[in-house]
Amino acid sequence: MTTAAPVPSSRDLPHPTCEEIRLEGVLHALSDPVRLGIVRELAAEGVALACSHFDVPVTKSTSTHHFRVLRESGVIRQIYEGTAKMNALRRDDLETLFPGLLDTLLAAATHQANRRTEA
Amino acid sequence: MTTAAPVPSSRDLPHPTCEEIRLEGVLHALSDPVRLGIVRELAAEGVALACSHFDVPVTKSTSTHHFRVLRESGVIRQIYEGTAKMNALRRDDLETLFPGLLDTLLAAATHQANRRTEA
Repeated sequence: MTTAAPVPSSRDLPHPTCEEIRLEGVLHALSDPVRLGIVRELAAEGVALACSHFDVPVTKSTSTHHFRVLRESGVIRQIYEGTAKMNALRRDDLETLFPGLLDTLLAAATHQANRRTEA
Repeated sequence: MTTAAPVPSSRDLPHPTCEEIRLEGVLHALSDPVRLGIVRELAAEGVALACSHFDVPVTKSTSTHHFRVLRESGVIRQIYEGTAKMNALRRDDLETLFPGLLDTLLAAATHQANRRTEA
């Protein structure tokens, strides 16, 4: 008896392979304040979070767009769990592709946030 | 006798102050392959270079646009020398604002370029 490969369901969302992830795409994904905020929160929590977890100052459709940009650039992985779309940082993939980049970007974002608070 | 402040000429190009430079703007500037290539070349040469130095695969007006995006985001400084517009990385400003970011981004770009060559 052979083990069948898992059949992708229509609810499986497309993700780039590591080979397909481009630095320019990652930087574009993080160049928007809402998307950068989502990534900072995912990094701070360290677990997968539902889209509904995030308190973003945009409409539902814009929010969906932002998550899609993050997924299609390879920054996050999105998986359905029941009716919830769960989001997780592709930390290991990014670290392999661009060593140190994610942590340096997160530190820069924190640096900027602190600078604004102090101003 | 007081020393007069330098009078900006019409040829002085506007640059953001350090306080005005935003991480999102820097990432947006570097999210385009042509602009990322310009920044890599400026970093590799380590000196100011004229726009005409760069062999970019775009029209003159698109090239001018790319340099403007880099200037307005705070990534480069542009100064006229005679009829040439000279471009220099704002390495010190960026390092103060976002420690380690520029070097990590340049390393990531090199990593990606090497990966493509090996493939």
